[in-house]
Amino acid sequence: MSLKNAFYAQSGGVTSVINASACGVIETSRKNSDKIGKLLAGRNGIIGALGEELIDTSRETDADIAALKNTPAGAFGSCRFKLKGLEENRREYERLIEVFKAHDIGYFFYNGGGDSADTCFKVSQLSATMGYPVQAIHIPKTVDNDLPITDVCPGFGSVAKYIAVSALEASFDVSSMAKTSTKVFILEVMGRHAGWIAAAGGLIDDYGVPVLVLFPEVDFNHDKFIAAVKRKVETHGYCTIVVSEGARNADGSFLAEQGTRDAFGHAQLGGVAPVVANMVKQALGYKFHWAVADYLQRSARHIASASDLEQAYALGQAGVEMALAGKNSIMPTIERISSKPYRWQIGSAALADVANVEKTMPLDFINDDGFGITAKCREYLYPLIQGEAYPEYDERGMPRYVVLKNELVDKKLGDFVFQ
Amino acid sequence: MSLKNAFYAQSGGVTSVINASACGVIETSRKNSDKIGKLLAGRNGIIGALGEELIDTSRETDADIAALKNTPAGAFGSCRFKLKGLEENRREYERLIEVFKAHDIGYFFYNGGGDSADTCFKVSQLSATMGYPVQAIHIPKTVDNDLPITDVCPGFGSVAKYIAVSALEASFDVSSMAKTSTKVFILEVMGRHAGWIAAAGGLIDDYGVPVLVLFPEVDFNHDKFIAAVKRKVETHGYCTIVVSEGARNADGSFLAEQGTRDAFGHAQLGGVAPVVANMVKQALGYKFHWAVADYLQRSARHIASASDLEQAYALGQAGVEMALAGKNSIMPTIERISSKPYRWQIGSAALADVANVEKTMPLDFINDDGFGITAKCREYLYPLIQGEAYPEYDERGMPRYVVLKNELVDKKLGDFVFQ
Repeated sequence: MSLKNAFYAQSGGVTSVINASACGVIETSRKNSDKIGKLLAGRNGIIGALGEELIDTSRETDADIAALKNTPAGAFGSCRFKLKGLEENRREYERLIEVFKAHDIGYFFYNGGGDSADTCFKVSQLSATMGYPVQAIHIPKTVDNDLPITDVCPGFGSVAKYIAVSALEASFDVSSMAKTSTKVFILEVMGRHAGWIAAAGGLIDDYGVPVLVLFPEVDFNHDKFIAAVKRKVETHGYCTIVVSEGARNADGSFLAEQGTRDAFGHAQLGGVAPVVANMVKQALGYKFHWAVADYLQRSARHIASASDLEQAYALGQAGVEMALAGKNSIMPTIERISSKPYRWQIGSAALADVANVEKTMPLDFINDDGFGITAKCREYLYPLIQGEAYPEYDERGMPRYVVLKNELVDKKLGDFVFQ
Repeated sequence: MSLKNAFYAQSGGVTSVINASACGVIETSRKNSDKIGKLLAGRNGIIGALGEELIDTSRETDADIAALKNTPAGAFGSCRFKLKGLEENRREYERLIEVFKAHDIGYFFYNGGGDSADTCFKVSQLSATMGYPVQAIHIPKTVDNDLPITDVCPGFGSVAKYIAVSALEASFDVSSMAKTSTKVFILEVMGRHAGWIAAAGGLIDDYGVPVLVLFPEVDFNHDKFIAAVKRKVETHGYCTIVVSEGARNADGSFLAEQGTRDAFGHAQLGGVAPVVANMVKQALGYKFHWAVADYLQRSARHIASASDLEQAYALGQAGVEMALAGKNSIMPTIERISSKPYRWQIGSAALADVANVEKTMPLDFINDDGFGITAKCREYLYPLIQGEAYPEYDERGMPRYVVLKNELVDKKLGDFVFQ
C-alpha cells in the first residue's frame, strides 16, 4: 500500500514565525517518511490546492527547510480566501477532492487564523459530507491572538515583543526631546478587533514610560482621553500613546475607517495614528510625532520572541504527530502550566469549537481608567516575549532569509475557474 | 592649579548610538582624571548650560556609564535650540561664559548635527571674540548623514540597518500575500533633505526584492513613477516603495508638506507614505499598505549596527583626546581606508568647514532611472550596517536600557530668562 501524501498551506496574514510552523510540519513529516509520503504545499495557500499548484517540498534541501525557522512571512505564499459553505459552493469542495485524489492526499495541514480554522473544519468534514477520507489539522497562527482555547497564537509573541521594545525605544527618544520638541508620540499597532497587540505597548510603564493605550475593547471618549494626555505630559513632560488600528467610538465606528474591505468582508483598517495626533494637537497644542508600524511589526523576524518561535515550531510538529495518531478536525494548542517560571505544553482543541470564534481581551486585563493594562495582563504577556531568537546575518550585515525553490509537481487535472 | 572641568551636551534629534558617544566622552574623561576635572552634562542640551542645569556625571557609577553604550536616545536630554549670531544675541554668549566661569569649564563637547556644529563653532570663537578661553570640540551625530567631510555620521549606520532589514522583512510579507491581497507596500523614512536613509532601503534589491526609492534629490515625476510601479508589479507580482520624508515635486514643494516648522525654521515633515499610497491606488487600483517608521527607526537600538556603535564611541573618545592635545574648533571624523574589508580611522575637520554645510547624496549614488542606487552607493552603505550590536535583555524579555540619576550640581548664578 502506498503512503498517503500530505498537503500544507499558509493562510491569511503572515507572521514572523509562520515559517517556523511550516518547518515543524515538514521536518516532522520527513522524520516519519515511513508513514507519510510527500509533503505538498499549496502555492499561495488554499488557492494552490484549488488551482492544483502544488509545491513539491521534497525538492528542498534539509538546510533550506531548517532555514525556514529563521525566515519571516510565508515561504509558500499565502492568501485571503475563505471557502464558502458546502451548500453555497459545492464545486470548490468537489475540486478539492479531485485534487486530493489525483495527488493521493490524505492529510491536510492548514496554518492560519480564525477564518482558516473554519475552512479547515469544513475540509475535516469531507469524509462525512462527501465520502472522501482526509484528516484535517489546523495549525494556529495569527498576530491578532484572537483564536479561542489556545493560551496564545504563534506570531503574537513576536509582534508583542517588537511593539513593547519599539515603543520603549521611541519613548526614550521622545523623553530626550520633550523639553523643546515632541511631547506626544503616537504608535499605531495592528490587532483588528482585539487589543492584544496594543496591550503589549502597555508593558512599558513598567520601565518608567508614561503611556496610554487605546483598546478596541474600550469605547473611545475624546474628553477623557485628552484629559489623560494632558495629565501625563504635565506630570512627566511627555506621553506615549499606543493606539490599536481597531480603536472605535461609542457608536461602533472606527476612529480611522478607510471605507475599504478585504476579501473576507472585514473593514480594512489603518491610519488611526494621524487622526489621534491631530486630536491631541487641536485640543492641547503639543508637538507630536506618529508612527504606523504596519507590516514591519508582523514581519520583524529580527526581534522575534524565542518562546514564540519555539511554540510555532512545536505546534507544526504536534499537528503532524496528531495526524499520525489518527486525529481529525483538531487544532494543537498551547496550554500554560505556569507563568513564573514560564512552562507550557501542547494541548488540543476540536475545530468545531475554534472555527469563527474570536477571542477578545478579558476585561480584567484592562485597568480601571481604560488606558492601561493590569497586573494579570502583564503576567500573561511577559512570558510570551521572553528570549531573543535572532536570525543569522550575512557578512554585509543583512539577515540570511531563505527563498525556497518552490517547484510545482506536474498537474494531472484541467484548470479550475475561480468564481 | 585646579583642573578645568568639561561640559558635554547632546543636541538636536537623538539617535540609537548618541549615548555611545557620551560614553566615549565620559569614560575617556574619567581615564584622564589627572587632566580633566568633572564632566558636567547639559540637562536637555545647550539650554542646560544657559539655564545652569548641569548634571554631575561623576555621581553615576562606572556600570551605568558603560550601559550608555547599549541605550538609545539622549540620556541627558537634548534640545532643538540654535544659538543666534553674536551680534544678534550677545546676552546668550555672555551667559554661557558666566556659567563656564562659575563652574570652571574649559572644555566644551557638543554632540550634534549641522546646526549644532554651527553653535559649537561659535563657542570655539569665544576666546577670540569675548576673551574667554574654552576649547570647543564637536562630536558628530545625525541619522540624516548630512555632515560634510566625515565619511559617515554616527547614528546613520544603525538607521540604515534598521531600514534595510525592516524593508526586506516587510517585502517578504508582501510577497507572500500579493497573489490575493497587498501588492504595493510603502515605507516612509527620515532623512530630511538628504536621501541617505532612503538609499539604505534600495539595498534590498540585492535580495531579490522589487523596490523603488523616492529620493529628495530627484524631482518627483508622477507618470514616470506610476509606470515604474506598474512594471514592477506586472513583473514580480508586487512592489516595495521606500519614500523619503523629503521627497519633493519639481517645483520644490514637498510631496507631504504639513505646513508647520520646527525651532530651526525647518519645515516639519511626515506623512508622505499615505500620499504616495493614494497616488498608486488612484492610478493603478492596487491594494496597498503603508508604514511610517518615524522615531522607531532612529531609536532602534535593538538592531543597531556594530560598526556604527563602534564609531560613535570612538568619536566621543577622540573628541576628548583632541581637547587634551590642545585642539579647539574641531570635529573628529571618520575616514574610510577601504570598503572591502571595511577599514577606517579617526580624522578631523575644522568646524569652520563643517558648520551649516549640508552634504547631500552624490548624484552617482542614484541610478539612471532615479528610483534606485548604484554599485558605488552599495559599496558605501554595506560597511556601515555590518555587525549586530545587540543590547542585553532582562529576564522578562525587554532590553536593559539605563536611566541615569542625572543629579544637578548646585547653582551658583541667578536665573536666565530665555527669550
